[in-house]
Amino acid sequence: MYTLYHHPFSPSSRFIRLILREYGAEFEEKPMNPWERPQELLLLNPAGTVPVLVENEGPPICGPLPIMEYLDETRGYAVGDRRLMPDHPEARAECRRIVDWALTKFDNEVVGHLVRERIYKQTMPKSAGGGEPDSAALRVARANIHHHMKYFGYLAASRRWIAGERLSFADFALAAEISSVDYLGEVPWAAEENVKNWYARVKSRPCMRPLLLEKVLGMPASSTYADLDF
Amino acid sequence: MYTLYHHPFSPSSRFIRLILREYGAEFEEKPMNPWERPQELLLLNPAGTVPVLVENEGPPICGPLPIMEYLDETRGYAVGDRRLMPDHPEARAECRRIVDWALTKFDNEVVGHLVRERIYKQTMPKSAGGGEPDSAALRVARANIHHHMKYFGYLAASRRWIAGERLSFADFALAAEISSVDYLGEVPWAAEENVKNWYARVKSRPCMRPLLLEKVLGMPASSTYADLDF
Repeated sequence: MYTLYHHPFSPSSRFIRLILREYGAEFEEKPMNPWERPQELLLLNPAGTVPVLVENEGPPICGPLPIMEYLDETRGYAVGDRRLMPDHPEARAECRRIVDWALTKFDNEVVGHLVRERIYKQTMPKSAGGGEPDSAALRVARANIHHHMKYFGYLAASRRWIAGERLSFADFALAAEISSVDYLGEVPWAAEENVKNWYARVKSRPCMRPLLLEKVLGMPASSTYADLDF
Repeated sequence: MYTLYHHPFSPSSRFIRLILREYGAEFEEKPMNPWERPQELLLLNPAGTVPVLVENEGPPICGPLPIMEYLDETRGYAVGDRRLMPDHPEARAECRRIVDWALTKFDNEVVGHLVRERIYKQTMPKSAGGGEPDSAALRVARANIHHHMKYFGYLAASRRWIAGERLSFADFALAAEISSVDYLGEVPWAAEENVKNWYARVKSRPCMRPLLLEKVLGMPASSTYADLDF
């Protein structure tokens, strides 16, 4: 049994929720606001970030990449064909490159800005940095998203899944990031048919369902968010 | 035979040079300035970042974490006792957590600012953002470094190496980051005896030697940089 410390709209937390479900793992969710620096979280992870995974009475596994590798090392062989890490070192490197692109580069240049300005800041008190979105940050994110979508479109056009011929961690890392932005109606779907088709395939997987039912208080999801035929 | 595309003072490139040498791998170095967006680099890594590793005629392995995992998967078993990835999944997670702390958190909050403002900007043309260091960025980095050193001191005091009882990738990731800052004389050594003792042990390894001989044009290294008994 796992316990997952996470935030419902933190993309890297969403990534872990998706892959836990794909690996058929049962877990208890402990949602928290990392910006409040809760003592419970700091004791587990001195970096004060989510996600953090604890298996039974084991030590905390901190951060999306260590959790991804840990889940693969401890459960990957048991799931057989449904393993999300490719077998060959070169294919694994490609999977990790795309995971890193999604969770770091895409997050730093696009998703992080949008989620912070439009979701987190609505929940934060003014004293912790909450309030109106910073329009400069939104502008940067909205300009950058087109370059990223173009690149994802190129990848989606040249392979069956985003990092190769088989479904992998990379698909869920990117889907997690995109889902947070899609909630906000910020994904320019019309421009990238190949990304749209790829995302529709990921979205139809059962592991996505709980995420698609989630709501930010007082902010309805975009029309595309939960629609499987968007 | 490997080819490594890197920048001599990019901490994550230094990390890869250290572990290639620790794993006894021969490699040709291709130093480059990523901010010039060289075509050769962009063709290998669309993110335009270093390090990138190519083995023989194989595909490019992009980014420090994918390279680290790739080297471990392809050479880790052959080096026996000198393997830098722990055996147990929980110990591996701890190793990856510290690697991520060094290359991402410490780099974002401290090292990246100092290296960019004081080294990269000296080589960049004005049109590419070169010129005088941004004093606000330097101030932030110099304030943040104390918190990080304190945490590294806590780790160094409680274990033989930085991620556990055995030398691991984490030691070289952190040493790579610290070495870039130490060149600039920005490490507050006096305050953290335990970090100093740990770094002295890493520094005395043969893999560190080539790095300690490197120079930034027109900027001599600090007095502690190459001194093994600093």
